Amino acid sequence: MADSDAIAIPHGFRTAAGKAGIKPSGGPDLAVFVADGPCAAAGTFTTNRVCAAPVKWCRGLLPADDIRAIVVNAGNANAATGAQGAANAERTAARAAELIGCEPRQVLVASTGVIGHQLPMDKVEAGLDRLIPRASADASSFDEASRAILTTDTHPKVVSLSYSEGGVAFSLLAMAKGAAMIGPRMATMLAFILTDAPVWPSDLQPILLDAVEDSFNCLSVEGHASTNDTVLILSSTASTAPTLRGEELTAFAGMVRSACESLARMMAADGEGATHFITIDIEGCRDREEARAIAREVAESALVKTAIHGADPNWGRIVSAAGYAGVDFDEGELSLWINGVCVYEAGAPTAFDAAALSAGLKAERDVTLRLALRRGEGRIRFWTCDLTAEYVHLNADYTT
Amino acid sequence: MADSDAIAIPHGFRTAAGKAGIKPSGGPDLAVFVADGPCAAAGTFTTNRVCAAPVKWCRGLLPADDIRAIVVNAGNANAATGAQGAANAERTAARAAELIGCEPRQVLVASTGVIGHQLPMDKVEAGLDRLIPRASADASSFDEASRAILTTDTHPKVVSLSYSEGGVAFSLLAMAKGAAMIGPRMATMLAFILTDAPVWPSDLQPILLDAVEDSFNCLSVEGHASTNDTVLILSSTASTAPTLRGEELTAFAGMVRSACESLARMMAADGEGATHFITIDIEGCRDREEARAIAREVAESALVKTAIHGADPNWGRIVSAAGYAGVDFDEGELSLWINGVCVYEAGAPTAFDAAALSAGLKAERDVTLRLALRRGEGRIRFWTCDLTAEYVHLNADYTT
Repeated sequence: MADSDAIAIPHGFRTAAGKAGIKPSGGPDLAVFVADGPCAAAGTFTTNRVCAAPVKWCRGLLPADDIRAIVVNAGNANAATGAQGAANAERTAARAAELIGCEPRQVLVASTGVIGHQLPMDKVEAGLDRLIPRASADASSFDEASRAILTTDTHPKVVSLSYSEGGVAFSLLAMAKGAAMIGPRMATMLAFILTDAPVWPSDLQPILLDAVEDSFNCLSVEGHASTNDTVLILSSTASTAPTLRGEELTAFAGMVRSACESLARMMAADGEGATHFITIDIEGCRDREEARAIAREVAESALVKTAIHGADPNWGRIVSAAGYAGVDFDEGELSLWINGVCVYEAGAPTAFDAAALSAGLKAERDVTLRLALRRGEGRIRFWTCDLTAEYVHLNADYTT
Repeated sequence: MADSDAIAIPHGFRTAAGKAGIKPSGGPDLAVFVADGPCAAAGTFTTNRVCAAPVKWCRGLLPADDIRAIVVNAGNANAATGAQGAANAERTAARAAELIGCEPRQVLVASTGVIGHQLPMDKVEAGLDRLIPRASADASSFDEASRAILTTDTHPKVVSLSYSEGGVAFSLLAMAKGAAMIGPRMATMLAFILTDAPVWPSDLQPILLDAVEDSFNCLSVEGHASTNDTVLILSSTASTAPTLRGEELTAFAGMVRSACESLARMMAADGEGATHFITIDIEGCRDREEARAIAREVAESALVKTAIHGADPNWGRIVSAAGYAGVDFDEGELSLWINGVCVYEAGAPTAFDAAALSAGLKAERDVTLRLALRRGEGRIRFWTCDLTAEYVHLNADYTT
C-alpha cells in the first residue's frame, strides 16, 4: 500500500478525477486515465450473465495493442440498462476519444454504483470535457482518481511497485474499489493496473488471468458476483521499448500478482461493516479447485461470519460449511485450527480453551482459519470478512 | 397450521416431552414419539458430508417396516463428535428400546442444537427414563413435543390433516423445527410426520422424497446446510390395515406434500430475525433445475435480503443474483416483478413508482418476487426471509 508521497507513476500516463454530479452525495465520481501513446491492454471481467454495458464494451475490445484511455465512473453501474445503456457506454468512449484525439474503440470504460439506472450523460460528458484537458502525471491526480472510483469503500486502495535490475527498470501502479457485491467469479470489483513495463498483449493477458485467479478470485465479501467486475491492465511502452522476456517477464508477472493480492486483501479487510479480516487456508485437498470450493462455502456462510463477528469460537459452523461444498471427504479426514488453536482433529472435537480463544478473537482484527484434509496437496488461501449488523444497515437502505 | 385444540392425533402413537437439562436455558429439550406397534418408516437427510451421528444412525435403518419410536433432543446437535458421538446416538436408542420393549434398531434418533459437543448422556438417559413411561396420545403431549424440539424458533410449527372418503379415513400430524442453518440440500431441518394411513415403506419413501423436493428443498434461510437435517415419516397401521392404493394413495401423497410445504413456509417466515417472508417464483426456464439454481442464488443473496429488509426496491440486486446462477440466459430474456409491479422488462428498466413500491414493502410482511425468463416451461416456487441486524445479533453470540 502506498500513500501519494511514495507512489511511482509509470511513464506515459496522465490522469484526472473529480465530481461530475453522478453520485447523489456530490462526492468525486469520475476518473480518467489517459496514455500518451497506444498501450498494450488486457482485461478480465465478471462471469455474471447480467453484466454491465461497460463490461460488454471492454470485452469486445481486449486484448489490444492501441488503447489510449480508461474512463471510470462511480455512483451508477450502467448495468441492466438495456440498449440505452450500451449506447451510453459507447457515447462515453466517443466523447473521451474526441477530447484525446483517438478512436472510440481505443477508450475503455468502467462503471460502478447502483444497478438499473441510466447514466446521466449530460453530466458524464460535461465531466469529461472538464477533466481530460487537465489530466496530469503527478501523484495527486492518481490519488484523486483512486478516491473517485470508490462507492462504499472507507478508503482508497492503491499499490505501487517498482523493478530495477541490470539497467531494466519499470513500475506498476494499481488501484481498486470494492467493499460489497463481491463474490469470486472472475474479477470481482474494479481494478486498474498501469505499468510502463514493455509487455505485449499476448503476454499481458495470461499474466493478468493468473494473477486474478489467485487474488480477486480468492476473495468474497458476501458471495454476490457483481455485474460490473472489471480488471484492466495497460502497458504504456510496449510499442517503444524491447519487450520483456525470461526472468524480467517473470519478475513483472510476480509484481502483477503481488499487486492484485494486496488489493484483494485490502478489499476483504474493508468489506462493508467489517470488524474482522479473515484469512482462510484450506490444505490437503486433491486439487486447488476442491480447496477453492471449500474455502468459498466457509467464506460465504453467514453463520461462520457472524460467529467470528461475535468472537464466538463456534467451530461447528466452519466444519459444517466445509461439509456442503460438494467435496466428498470424510469427517475423519478433517482438522481445524482457529488462530492457530486446534479445535477439531481428525473428525473429533478437542479440549481447547474456548474463553481464551474467544478473547483472542475479540482483541484482534485479523483471524486465520486453517482447515486441513488428508487427501492430497491441493491448497488455497482465501480472504473474507465478518458479517455485522452494520453490513445490514448499510445495505438495507442503499437506493432509497 | 393447527392449534392443540384442533389437531387430530393419528392412531397408534403416544408422545412425551419435557426438560432433560440439555439446553443451558433449562427449557424443554427432549421429545419421544412412541408407536404402539411396528411402523412403516421412511426418511430423508442432509447431504452435508459432515453429518450428525443421529443422521448416520437413521440412514442405516431406513426405510423400515418395524420402527417403534423416535427420540429427539434439542440443545445439542451431536454433530462433529466422532466415535463417541456415534456411540451416544446408539446408546440413546438402546435406552429408549429397553424402556419400550423393542430392539435399539427400532428406535430412530434426531438431534439439533450446537455442533461439536458431546451429548450429556446422564441427562438424556434420565430424561428418557422419566418421559417414556408417561407417553400419551393426548393433544397436549404432542403440543409439548412440538415445543421441545425447537431451538431458536419463535413458535412451534405443526400441521394436522385428515382424510375421509368412502369409508377410508386417516390423519397426518407433522411438526418441524428450523429457523437458521437452513439451505436447500435435501431436508433442511428436523421434521416428523406421523400418520395412521396404511402405507408400506416402499410407497412411503418415494412419497416423502417427492414432497421434500418441492417443500424443504425450496427453502433457504441463509444457505448453510445443516449437519442434522432429518425428515422422518412413520405410518402406524401399515401392518394392520389394507394398504392404500390408487386415488387414496394419491390423496395421501398430496397430504404429505401439503404438510411439508406448510412447514417449509412456516420455517422461512420464522427465519432468525426475519421481518419479511419472501416467496420467489421463477418461471420460463428450460427445466425445474434451472429455476431452482436461480431461485437459490436470489434467496441466498445477502444483498437481496438486506434490500427487502430495508423496503428498498433495489431490483438490480435481484437480476444480478439471477445472473450468477450458472444459467446461460441473456438479459433480454429476463423480466422481474416485485409485489406484482414490473420493474425490469425484457432486459431494460421500467418507469415504476419506487416510492409506492417501497411503501408497500414497508407495510407488508409478505413479499413476492417473480422472475420470468423466455426459455421454456420450467418453474419453481421458493421461500426465504430477509436478513436483518437481529439475525447478526442472534448468531454472533450463540455458544458463548
